[in-house]
Amino acid sequence: MTARFRTTYRVACPESEIAARAQGIAVEQSVEMPLAAITDARVTAEVVGRVEQIVPLGPDSYAVEIALAVETVGAEVGQMLNMILGNTSMHDCVTLTDVEIVPEFAAWFGGPRLGLEGLRARVGAGQRPLTCTAIKPQGMPPEALAALAHRLALGGLDYVKDDHTQADQTTAPFSQRIPAVAAAVRRAASTTGRRTHYVPMLSGGWGRMHRQLALCREEGIDTVMMAPMLSGPATMAEIAREWPGMAIFAHPSMSGGHIAPDLLFGKLLRLWGADALIFANYGGRFGLSRAQCRQLADWAAAPMHGLRAAVPTPAGGMELARVGELLDFFGHDTMLLIGGSLLLAGERIPEVGAAFQHAVETHFP
Amino acid sequence: MTARFRTTYRVACPESEIAARAQGIAVEQSVEMPLAAITDARVTAEVVGRVEQIVPLGPDSYAVEIALAVETVGAEVGQMLNMILGNTSMHDCVTLTDVEIVPEFAAWFGGPRLGLEGLRARVGAGQRPLTCTAIKPQGMPPEALAALAHRLALGGLDYVKDDHTQADQTTAPFSQRIPAVAAAVRRAASTTGRRTHYVPMLSGGWGRMHRQLALCREEGIDTVMMAPMLSGPATMAEIAREWPGMAIFAHPSMSGGHIAPDLLFGKLLRLWGADALIFANYGGRFGLSRAQCRQLADWAAAPMHGLRAAVPTPAGGMELARVGELLDFFGHDTMLLIGGSLLLAGERIPEVGAAFQHAVETHFP
Repeated sequence: MTARFRTTYRVACPESEIAARAQGIAVEQSVEMPLAAITDARVTAEVVGRVEQIVPLGPDSYAVEIALAVETVGAEVGQMLNMILGNTSMHDCVTLTDVEIVPEFAAWFGGPRLGLEGLRARVGAGQRPLTCTAIKPQGMPPEALAALAHRLALGGLDYVKDDHTQADQTTAPFSQRIPAVAAAVRRAASTTGRRTHYVPMLSGGWGRMHRQLALCREEGIDTVMMAPMLSGPATMAEIAREWPGMAIFAHPSMSGGHIAPDLLFGKLLRLWGADALIFANYGGRFGLSRAQCRQLADWAAAPMHGLRAAVPTPAGGMELARVGELLDFFGHDTMLLIGGSLLLAGERIPEVGAAFQHAVETHFP
Repeated sequence: MTARFRTTYRVACPESEIAARAQGIAVEQSVEMPLAAITDARVTAEVVGRVEQIVPLGPDSYAVEIALAVETVGAEVGQMLNMILGNTSMHDCVTLTDVEIVPEFAAWFGGPRLGLEGLRARVGAGQRPLTCTAIKPQGMPPEALAALAHRLALGGLDYVKDDHTQADQTTAPFSQRIPAVAAAVRRAASTTGRRTHYVPMLSGGWGRMHRQLALCREEGIDTVMMAPMLSGPATMAEIAREWPGMAIFAHPSMSGGHIAPDLLFGKLLRLWGADALIFANYGGRFGLSRAQCRQLADWAAAPMHGLRAAVPTPAGGMELARVGELLDFFGHDTMLLIGGSLLLAGERIPEVGAAFQHAVETHFP
């Protein structure tokens, strides 16, 4: 087994404190106790985290690289998050910015089961970028959501997903919403001749999700969405493993905090089994920079011990007018998600959706 | 049904932006789309979040109170977190500081199943404060962990818990560790005549946790620990509901980010089913203030539509010398958790543990 893997943290503190802060993280993220109280020499030598280097990034800002023991991850996704960030998430001045993916992690967690090529093949997209939209708002009854989904799907988009706020509310219970919307999307697809897929949102703990997945499968649905940082990434990893053929869109709800988003989406959620990575794009309602988005997309496709590429899916206030710019930035290997701005088209949703689809399909010669 | 509940956010931004930021949160945490694109008048009137008030807290700092629709929570813990913070967690300048607990939430989620009085009754503690310690470090084999647990339990402490880093590593697999440590703690309890309880750490997704819980029950264990913000709070809520009689210690791993810790532990995790609330105390390795700790403890015991009180459990670098100060601060209704500093006693762990127990038992006349 690889003995150690590297984690990198950005730490904001005065120069006089950085050495102690770095050592503090190394101990917190491994044995979390006074080193003098450790009586097992193997633990001291092989398990205690080790500060590898401290690199100044700017005034009172440092990159701290720490070597953690691979054995502490215990072949489990939740425990990996526990070890790479866990308690250190309670230190406001620390952000996890990078994690070395060793071969064991790839073997243990398996990455995207479908990934970019799988999601393309499902909708017959060849090598082009993919399209996605969202059914909003929550609060409408199932028939109204289904009618809206039908109009969205008439544009011939690849994926029509639930809004992440759609759970199991009394206004549109999961057991009524999913069959109604799935039927509406199938009907639209038979009209357009496209293979538009409906992507329901899963919610709750694993027991509830399990029942939701069973209903999805009955409805012929092979792609679902969940928010791994809300449900726990271990829940997502279990679904990827236990529901073969079920593709997973990862939604960013509750992803804010102490993990850099490029790392979380591009490396970690890909590693842990997400096929599509929905993230808050630059120039939208949230604050990601162009550089973070570039890094995220690069990591989503980078070689990772044979794991499939995931699909970077920029979202969060995107507009139709930006399709060209976004494709120039992200290239072929992406999925564009446009929600609210398409809904603004009202009665013209099918036409505007078709224009979105056409723009994406014809952007690259 | 109560129509609306209040959420409060602390927002850091210039005065010129606060009105738009507040309205942005109200929309993001409800319908997440342009309001002009909503065609259902009921959704506009009853589902869209509403800014109730904006109160200046200091320079460029505001408390924003928003009324969200109770129906959007959909009687599910994960969805409640999705609605009260979710996407807004991606805004660095926003912290969720308060949530109104309406009667529906109490009825849906049930709060602590055992709570303060249940955890006291299990160890015959009467009305006194409780004691707890942790078995560290990870990396030792099961026999060594069991031997350490035996010495810790010989002090007569109430609860001896796993370190939160103990998962299912090859050095001490769960299936070997739990029976070995449980037997050691039982042996010590039969020596001391105390009812010392062993509290194993659960890890992984719900499927793995389910198997771990089954093993715990076989071993006669009735109290477990988990990290709800690592595993997803919905997973904790499902365990509270589906494993009657199993008390839950909530560990703070991954709790850092955009929820004020007093709110997260004192109100939310209590509401969602945690019996003991382990949090990073003032004056330890983490940065909670005395005021936050006071608020957390007050909320853990405050009237909440008939729900049981949870046990505030200050931790994170606590020392034996502080027992008196901590009890003066937290009062009778607390559990003191001392880990590393007890382990430093080495061969004298049973004696120092007994002194810790004695100090807690005799502090209040």
